Amino acid sequence: MTAEFVTPSSALPGRPAPFVLEAGDGERAHLFDQLFTVLLSGDETQGQFGVFTMEAPRGPAVPTHSHPDVHEIFYILDGKVRVVVEDNQGGTVDQVLTTGDFGYVPAGHKHSFRVESHRARTLGVSTGGFERFFAAAGEPTESRMPPERPVVPSPEQLGDAARRFRNDFHHDVRLID
Amino acid sequence: MTAEFVTPSSALPGRPAPFVLEAGDGERAHLFDQLFTVLLSGDETQGQFGVFTMEAPRGPAVPTHSHPDVHEIFYILDGKVRVVVEDNQGGTVDQVLTTGDFGYVPAGHKHSFRVESHRARTLGVSTGGFERFFAAAGEPTESRMPPERPVVPSPEQLGDAARRFRNDFHHDVRLID
Repeated sequence: MTAEFVTPSSALPGRPAPFVLEAGDGERAHLFDQLFTVLLSGDETQGQFGVFTMEAPRGPAVPTHSHPDVHEIFYILDGKVRVVVEDNQGGTVDQVLTTGDFGYVPAGHKHSFRVESHRARTLGVSTGGFERFFAAAGEPTESRMPPERPVVPSPEQLGDAARRFRNDFHHDVRLID
Repeated sequence: MTAEFVTPSSALPGRPAPFVLEAGDGERAHLFDQLFTVLLSGDETQGQFGVFTMEAPRGPAVPTHSHPDVHEIFYILDGKVRVVVEDNQGGTVDQVLTTGDFGYVPAGHKHSFRVESHRARTLGVSTGGFERFFAAAGEPTESRMPPERPVVPSPEQLGDAARRFRNDFHHDVRLID
């Protein structure tokens, strides 16, 4: 039997079953100027990890944030992304990453990033469950592009998503000027 | 402070510390006709997940195998890879994946894959710990290319790595002709 690709409108399996996705398919959401697409969730991996892509145009840095329980990676598929992460010695890891480069943000480390090219695409992996923060904070979408105008959640929606997914914002910490 | 990239010859941090890798850097190993590069191991993620890339030329299917404890993804960075996975209904998920496509192999499912283009590159994520199977079964290398001649481990080395990493080969099952 040849598998059908999981279609854009269907949910992921929600259990450890094999499946495939065509490029761009998955659970898509807009948040600020970014398109997030969840390819795999903790529901399929017994909570171990989730996988998602992010695409965005050149723009402002995302607010400094941290998640006490969640490890996260940045793998750059295309473009340039500056990633800044607080280290364990009172300093930062601060690097402009380009295609094929990799950055690691362990649980609890404050971090920020900024797209520094016309467009950028990244592949992210996180501790399972966190991958649905973006849809909770933003808006699920059928669009295949980043939003034309930023999707800015209300403070209530963003705060609620942050609490549910244990994502702490640090508005007093500017890691990228 | 601006981070130094972790250099090719250095090991990964071995604990949850932030770091970056330039494209191609990491723990590289040759196995059969493939170059594997580990970007992140279970040592940095409290055993949750590891991340690696694979590059190989067009070639034969890898032997059918399964790992009872390890979930694994295929994300195609470049080229075409046919991925075949046994499903839960006595059939298979069988799809030629190309750039940006995604495939999921849950723990315990027999699977195989074959590169079906001149070259292909994939990004893999697995349950933490499994990412070092490839170096254990093959040969660590400083090379930045797939091997010119296949690196074929002795049955003893392959069997030992398979036992250590709980990777079961099924030489009686041909998922790809």
